[in-house]
Amino acid sequence: MTTTQTKKQQIYEAAARLFRDKGYSATSMRHLAEAVALKASSLYNHIGSKEELLRDICFENAHKYLSGLQAIAMTRDSNLDKIKSLIDLHLDMATEDITSVTAFNDEWRHLSEPWLSDFIQLRKDYEKGFLEILEAGMNAGEIHRADAHTLLYTILSSIRWLYDWRKPEKPMDTERIKQQISNFLVRGLVN
Amino acid sequence: MTTTQTKKQQIYEAAARLFRDKGYSATSMRHLAEAVALKASSLYNHIGSKEELLRDICFENAHKYLSGLQAIAMTRDSNLDKIKSLIDLHLDMATEDITSVTAFNDEWRHLSEPWLSDFIQLRKDYEKGFLEILEAGMNAGEIHRADAHTLLYTILSSIRWLYDWRKPEKPMDTERIKQQISNFLVRGLVN
Repeated sequence: MTTTQTKKQQIYEAAARLFRDKGYSATSMRHLAEAVALKASSLYNHIGSKEELLRDICFENAHKYLSGLQAIAMTRDSNLDKIKSLIDLHLDMATEDITSVTAFNDEWRHLSEPWLSDFIQLRKDYEKGFLEILEAGMNAGEIHRADAHTLLYTILSSIRWLYDWRKPEKPMDTERIKQQISNFLVRGLVN
Repeated sequence: MTTTQTKKQQIYEAAARLFRDKGYSATSMRHLAEAVALKASSLYNHIGSKEELLRDICFENAHKYLSGLQAIAMTRDSNLDKIKSLIDLHLDMATEDITSVTAFNDEWRHLSEPWLSDFIQLRKDYEKGFLEILEAGMNAGEIHRADAHTLLYTILSSIRWLYDWRKPEKPMDTERIKQQISNFLVRGLVN
């Protein structure tokens, strides 16, 4: 990784944190420059604009989720194991890459057209793939039958608190927490 | 219910919707007046200020959750059944009272002191009561043993999507969705 790439990743992470804590609209390039200890003029050597930053973060994450889904869907695992892998994918993204919060929660709503529509389409593609596995799992008797949309939104929503975990009173034992959430959700799904 | 009370409730509901969709900071009294078809000057016959409105909504909901918890804790139900009732309380509040979103999601962060500290204390009291039932359920062997905080946050987070459900493509079959979420979570908890 070159120094430029490292700096760019630092900027992405700082931006994602600011967007989450202040909201996209209230975050200025000056806040961002301060957060990464750069002058505003130097910041523009690395990134074009706040909106370009939002776009890069949103689409990079959307593609990570989609390629994760595609890799999981292609395995010969049972449908239940595929869902387990998808839950792990979300838990890993939530705990390892702070920029995923921007794409996952609400900040993507600030994208302008045509990017907003493109992003919404990627989300729909992702949800469609996830729903297909849930439904295949129900048809195979592996997953308790229920409305697949309800299960999907409940699963995705259930890990949202991990993104908002700002000031833990004690450091998180991340691996243990991920394991317990995954077990809880899988027990809820299994037939 | 008098007409004044009805109007006040309408104003609360319109405010909660605006706070959710635009954010508290970006919502003006003019937006609110438009939403309830009043002149800004008439709006002040019903409410004092935007901040007072936020306070009323947050504390009214916090007390509803707390009194619900107290009533449930006092029953002679099993711990698992108490948790089931708490899940139902959240599902009912999420689907029946739009103002609960303000207290449940992020808008309460805009409260000023001393109300912010008071509100955080009420949330802590609520979480403490919920955690005690979870732990009693684990000790009684009714609930699968796990970190109670992880279970609590995962349960509360899991129904958050119901609040953000803005434009359903088809009308929600609310009772069925509530039942399915509840079943899914309870299956995940049970030992």
